[in-house]
Amino acid sequence: MINLNLENKKGFIYKQIYRAIKQYILNNELKAGEKLPSKRELATQEKVSLNTVSNAYDQLLAEGYIYSVERRGYFVEEIAPFKDTVLSNSDFPEDLKEKDSKLTGWLSLSHNKLDLTDFPYQKWLDHQEIVFKENIDDLQAIPNMQGPLKVRKTIARMLLFNRGVRCEPEQIVLGASTQILLKQLMELFPKESLVGLENPGYPRFNQLFKGMNKKIKSIELDKKGASIKAIKRINPNIIVITPSHQFPTGIIMPVSRRIDILNWALQDEKRYIIEDDYDSEYKYETDNIPSLQSLDNHQSVIYTGTFSKTLLAGIRISYMVLPVELLRKYQETHRDLMCTSNTVELYTLSRFIEQGDYLSYVKKMNYKYDIKRKKIIHMLEKIFKDHIQIKSIPAGLHFIAKIKTHLSYEIFTKRADQLKLELSTLSYFKHEHVKKDLGLSVIIGFAHIDIKDIEEAVMRLYSAVYD
Amino acid sequence: MINLNLENKKGFIYKQIYRAIKQYILNNELKAGEKLPSKRELATQEKVSLNTVSNAYDQLLAEGYIYSVERRGYFVEEIAPFKDTVLSNSDFPEDLKEKDSKLTGWLSLSHNKLDLTDFPYQKWLDHQEIVFKENIDDLQAIPNMQGPLKVRKTIARMLLFNRGVRCEPEQIVLGASTQILLKQLMELFPKESLVGLENPGYPRFNQLFKGMNKKIKSIELDKKGASIKAIKRINPNIIVITPSHQFPTGIIMPVSRRIDILNWALQDEKRYIIEDDYDSEYKYETDNIPSLQSLDNHQSVIYTGTFSKTLLAGIRISYMVLPVELLRKYQETHRDLMCTSNTVELYTLSRFIEQGDYLSYVKKMNYKYDIKRKKIIHMLEKIFKDHIQIKSIPAGLHFIAKIKTHLSYEIFTKRADQLKLELSTLSYFKHEHVKKDLGLSVIIGFAHIDIKDIEEAVMRLYSAVYD
Repeated sequence: MINLNLENKKGFIYKQIYRAIKQYILNNELKAGEKLPSKRELATQEKVSLNTVSNAYDQLLAEGYIYSVERRGYFVEEIAPFKDTVLSNSDFPEDLKEKDSKLTGWLSLSHNKLDLTDFPYQKWLDHQEIVFKENIDDLQAIPNMQGPLKVRKTIARMLLFNRGVRCEPEQIVLGASTQILLKQLMELFPKESLVGLENPGYPRFNQLFKGMNKKIKSIELDKKGASIKAIKRINPNIIVITPSHQFPTGIIMPVSRRIDILNWALQDEKRYIIEDDYDSEYKYETDNIPSLQSLDNHQSVIYTGTFSKTLLAGIRISYMVLPVELLRKYQETHRDLMCTSNTVELYTLSRFIEQGDYLSYVKKMNYKYDIKRKKIIHMLEKIFKDHIQIKSIPAGLHFIAKIKTHLSYEIFTKRADQLKLELSTLSYFKHEHVKKDLGLSVIIGFAHIDIKDIEEAVMRLYSAVYD
Repeated sequence: MINLNLENKKGFIYKQIYRAIKQYILNNELKAGEKLPSKRELATQEKVSLNTVSNAYDQLLAEGYIYSVERRGYFVEEIAPFKDTVLSNSDFPEDLKEKDSKLTGWLSLSHNKLDLTDFPYQKWLDHQEIVFKENIDDLQAIPNMQGPLKVRKTIARMLLFNRGVRCEPEQIVLGASTQILLKQLMELFPKESLVGLENPGYPRFNQLFKGMNKKIKSIELDKKGASIKAIKRINPNIIVITPSHQFPTGIIMPVSRRIDILNWALQDEKRYIIEDDYDSEYKYETDNIPSLQSLDNHQSVIYTGTFSKTLLAGIRISYMVLPVELLRKYQETHRDLMCTSNTVELYTLSRFIEQGDYLSYVKKMNYKYDIKRKKIIHMLEKIFKDHIQIKSIPAGLHFIAKIKTHLSYEIFTKRADQLKLELSTLSYFKHEHVKKDLGLSVIIGFAHIDIKDIEEAVMRLYSAVYD
């Protein structure tokens, strides 16, 4: 007869019984085929109710520790002993441990950080409340793989209005990031396709294509952006470019270069241009510049954009506009994929755009960012005097400044860290080192920093270089 | 002298001037190098303010249609003519057009649809409001690639409490779907790795691995779930299994088979078990059954789960728990990836769990789904009598029923459609056809249907087979 040693009868007694018997079985003290006491016997022995024993036996049955034979009772299952039972989870490696890091005293000129202090989250939540009421039928089902049609209609209208993009809602694919969408896109092209990437350029794309074992070549830049000579020389099948505001240099590609590139693509119907319009919403001094896609009459451009810069990085809503032939391939190849963006947020965004809240927020932020940008340029010129050359292009959320110094990028970065100044340098964004620049090219992101901290941040930058 | 033909001076006149000059240039009526009238001349000619002409010229400059030479004026840029200017966007193919389809009169026994009528969205929104206030610093930056540490801590505690999963928050990777996470995971294994998949099983995984050109073999099922004999025979490197509630058959893997499989993995440290615990939260009659991972002392199990079944399909929050060695590889290989789940929703979920709202919602739904399940089983038995055999496993959100008939799956599906009854059959989930079953195995999802419609749905099912 088993002795359950029920310590105390507080809490769920059936769980104590269940655990005790389970342990006997795992320790091989109750052996395969052995008969358990009947529920009534055990209940009497342990002075508990029949129901309590019943619950314990049911759980053991469900997990497969015991089996029952009609009118004969309960028996122990045949369970192979564990080959090894050493616990190993306790020694989690020290170097993998993460800390909750609240950095204090830092100032950020990172191009990756935004200013959310004016984000109209109350409006956002109001729209979301309506979504939960009005879209419940859609939310109960698996969403359309390209994102809900209603949301794509809104985005198609917005893209036409803001960026001159001409497309049907059917051509839009929504997804959690431009990375994910480009990965899905690249899977539609032949394996051996050669991809041309701007250099310097967006390193996440470089990594992405490398990870996919794609053949990559660098496209140098000239003063008009991606060099047409370089494109013709390397002869890629697909190029990825950022005409509205080249990343990271900020160059706005003039219409002459845009047409050159479109004409290049036209010569072979297997040539495609991926236009990444990542922060085109912000433009100072003049109006927005229409997208490259708006000039394309031959479905050679795949247009991509994101809400990461206008709303928040964590919104995880990006979009790509596929030419018709690629759309067909996409629907064939990826028919088992699910849309990666959160549906509630997609519907909320759709309302946010339709009701005009999006445009008014972008306008407000454009104005605010312009003030920060002017102030930071002013302070840089005031403090650095002729030691700095600012490539101040009136678009986006960052610009490049070239500082006269013999300091290496490595030492500069260390010193900036010591002074608690967060920012990136151009060296990080070069896929291949083209030539040794004289001086330091730093990327000044002006979105995140509080206007009152700008002077201090510029002082730290100066100290990092010259002190 | 150019004639701008400004139709009427309503709206933004500078835009009219801009458009008119741009058109002259694109039509080659203003030629490269040609001098434009001075701002003052044009303002006088068109009877508009100097400022209006200035704005138009600035925009043309920014887009690269014209250039300025100091003290000489504005000139037309050299722009290659478009090689072709045929508009082609108008003829979007008919077969790709999507319709807003509101299906009326349908009843759904789909295993993919949930019941959201009791979703406490007001609480969800309240938590989200606090997130916007308290987590603004985190929301302004790029989120951690595995998801915010705070959220992973919450999920680690929850998994330990609900599923017995033993892990550090550092081992958790959050992402928009199990598909995406498994794709990232598979990229850590050698190319030639052989993957064993349950058959019948989850077709999206089959498609996913095929799309990645992975070698796949089917693991048959026996009454304990994934067959250990089959596993030993095909000798895979990685197996994907659903021990809590096999998809789609619903089999709960007993502890004896779990230990057999763990012992199999132990024999070679390159063997891994992916445990997909997709709908383990729902359990009727007995308690939850601890995960397979909870029995694993050797870091052979990769545990994955999702909030798609307990919250909503569009939430796009899934997680995987990586053994230490794979975690290292993950951080190396994917260091440029961004977390694909929406950060605001992640923080909201974290609060929702911490405050107990998640567990109380799951419990409430477990109770509700149990009532639906019992009612539907009762109705099936009442209407089909001995023409049906129900494999009623007390877990998850669906079960399989086998109906006596000579009808083919194809004809049955057509007839169900005609009767506006949405449901899936087992035939869809078999990767390879093993043998011809007699009768129809249909998958009865009981989550979505309104309790008052259950009788009608069962009647339609009966009609689809026998009328």
